[in-house]
Amino acid sequence: MVNVDRQEFLKKLVTQSDSRILLLVMDGIGDVPGENRKTPLQIAKTPNLDRLAKESELGQTIPVFPGVTPGSGPGHLSLFGYDPIRYQIGRCILEALGTGVDVGEKDLVARANFATVEGNVVKDRRAGRPSTEESAKVVEKLAKEIDEIRDVKISLYPGKEHRFVVKFTGDDLDERITDADPQKNGLPIVWSEPMVKEAKFTAEIVNEFLKRVRAILKDEPKMNFALLRGFSKYPQLPNFCDVYGLKAAAIATYPMYRGIAKLVGMEVLECGPKVEDEVQTLRERYKDFDFFYLHIKKTDSYGEDGNFEAKVKVIEEVDRLLPDILNLGFDVVVVTGDHSTPVPLKGHSWHPVPFMIKSRFARCDIENAFDEFSCARGVLGTFYAVDVMGLILAHALRLEKYGA
Amino acid sequence: MVNVDRQEFLKKLVTQSDSRILLLVMDGIGDVPGENRKTPLQIAKTPNLDRLAKESELGQTIPVFPGVTPGSGPGHLSLFGYDPIRYQIGRCILEALGTGVDVGEKDLVARANFATVEGNVVKDRRAGRPSTEESAKVVEKLAKEIDEIRDVKISLYPGKEHRFVVKFTGDDLDERITDADPQKNGLPIVWSEPMVKEAKFTAEIVNEFLKRVRAILKDEPKMNFALLRGFSKYPQLPNFCDVYGLKAAAIATYPMYRGIAKLVGMEVLECGPKVEDEVQTLRERYKDFDFFYLHIKKTDSYGEDGNFEAKVKVIEEVDRLLPDILNLGFDVVVVTGDHSTPVPLKGHSWHPVPFMIKSRFARCDIENAFDEFSCARGVLGTFYAVDVMGLILAHALRLEKYGA
Repeated sequence: MVNVDRQEFLKKLVTQSDSRILLLVMDGIGDVPGENRKTPLQIAKTPNLDRLAKESELGQTIPVFPGVTPGSGPGHLSLFGYDPIRYQIGRCILEALGTGVDVGEKDLVARANFATVEGNVVKDRRAGRPSTEESAKVVEKLAKEIDEIRDVKISLYPGKEHRFVVKFTGDDLDERITDADPQKNGLPIVWSEPMVKEAKFTAEIVNEFLKRVRAILKDEPKMNFALLRGFSKYPQLPNFCDVYGLKAAAIATYPMYRGIAKLVGMEVLECGPKVEDEVQTLRERYKDFDFFYLHIKKTDSYGEDGNFEAKVKVIEEVDRLLPDILNLGFDVVVVTGDHSTPVPLKGHSWHPVPFMIKSRFARCDIENAFDEFSCARGVLGTFYAVDVMGLILAHALRLEKYGA
Repeated sequence: MVNVDRQEFLKKLVTQSDSRILLLVMDGIGDVPGENRKTPLQIAKTPNLDRLAKESELGQTIPVFPGVTPGSGPGHLSLFGYDPIRYQIGRCILEALGTGVDVGEKDLVARANFATVEGNVVKDRRAGRPSTEESAKVVEKLAKEIDEIRDVKISLYPGKEHRFVVKFTGDDLDERITDADPQKNGLPIVWSEPMVKEAKFTAEIVNEFLKRVRAILKDEPKMNFALLRGFSKYPQLPNFCDVYGLKAAAIATYPMYRGIAKLVGMEVLECGPKVEDEVQTLRERYKDFDFFYLHIKKTDSYGEDGNFEAKVKVIEEVDRLLPDILNLGFDVVVVTGDHSTPVPLKGHSWHPVPFMIKSRFARCDIENAFDEFSCARGVLGTFYAVDVMGLILAHALRLEKYGA
């Protein structure tokens, strides 16, 4: 079929309705059978999820392509209907978002290393791997001395060991500059170069910043210079609320997911750290929005840890809270993940992700249960995650007919 | 989604691993129920394939598009991850490969007919359909007389009846020349014309060749001229080993499949004519490669013959040899076909192709069996054959995560 951007296509069909939508994302929910030949979803006692499944259409989603394991960025972007190939968020932006650095439209961020230089040569790109505490002190020292360069504001954020993040805030910043990093020990210092004419100013700021760092740290025994790489501007994404005609809110406890939600234009709600806190926030703000993205982190975390029992327990916890959520009265409820995180793999994977959508108009099946196998055999079959938003809007009666 | 070439996309994610992969292609394996309402895969006694299925993910592949019946070229290219629309291999190249003609990068091949001319008119484009033996003698006569034209080497290969193949080998040959064939009896002789400036030299060589043929055969009663068409150069395909970071070998007994494997850059192994010879080669060379393409021809041949029982027997033969294959210790095993060849159709067909993939990370299902129906209901659903290599690399842990 003609290759059309889903969002551009849907936007023209969007119409208003007072329907309310919940997108419940259990991060990394999909799994593969372990030694017991069962997945956590199959073992977990989930009477409420299974009851919901019987009122839902089931299917399984492919986040990017078959075989491709997505990071959290592409996994969420496709669930939100953004083509994960077309829209790629710089690793640096996601790391910044993940460490809680607030990133906005005028910001350019870079990953930084402390390094040891002798004369003009980079002796150690990691400055002898200082402890996180030592490194944070030097970041603080720099932050006190460098505040602004030619109207560009400089913000510094400590990271693990030799790593930190630099954020440049100002007009006309351009990410098309080269890394200021020789990539190998024993090579001369490398300055940033503009890759296009428009980026000349940015490269000058970056190099001026590095010169000041050098001057300030000249007496440090090891952390006497910095290397900068992966310059990324805040990406320009179509606004979620604008594209789908929704007033959308995000409830998530981890900075990375709060950051992605902010990036697409959702309102990120204040919330406590536990799943029940998230449900509490949902309850309190239910009247204020017509779309909620609710993110459950720990299913992924325990998958990454290879902890089968703990993953089962989180699923059961969500199941216990589900009646409270459903009682709010959503017209459309989706339960799915952004990717699979199988316990045996201890990491994200390429496996399709269990998906269910409940509405008055679901082609529901009394045989359904919410697990990988029932979803794989579901009436929706296997489909791309980038098509989820279209399905959601349809069930919410928020899309007009296409063509006469 | 953005229309991205799978190979370009995967290549950036490829990483190294010591995992070993087997792609076992049972040519034309898919079928439709016959008078007994069962397919050969359902009737064949295949305890080993069914056991493997229970440790595998099942699905079915679409070689090109739904409804499109692929030749062996597109069928294999998509299995190997080459977009079968983007990469089209000239029929002439495949016929040459299929008849065992060795084709390389400096070669231009053409299909040829013996014809009867009177004066300047082509009286019979098939020269009265000579027997294959008579025709071969005349090819031999030509081969003795024509060896080279202006540094371009000429090689001739006999074919069936009036047909033969001409291979031109040299620098700067260009396939963009017109057919030297009037297409109809009773029309004047047609000479080859360059379609672009760069092909002028090639057209001259071809026409010079035809003039020499005419001179040499002037006393032949019927086969006194030749018509040439379908000029094809050796296609430039991305190298399989380079794209996927694999050391890949092909084990196949028929020239066509050995040729396709060579075309994509696999090493084609010497091998005896039987399936057990192929398994023997696999055993001997197991340590030398990390990817093996193993081709079983007869499932297709008996499908083409409409011989249900014989197709069943070949499947059972492969099943008997399967434990020997699996004992080698592959990390990833795929069993599938390049297309279906249903017995009632006596030819290739458009039907999806049974597919299974086994690895430690398979979302396996104890209910699985290896046949068209169990595969259609498998956890992988229905997917494009061009996505097979992504899945294989993922299960072999040879792909990095996409995005942070």
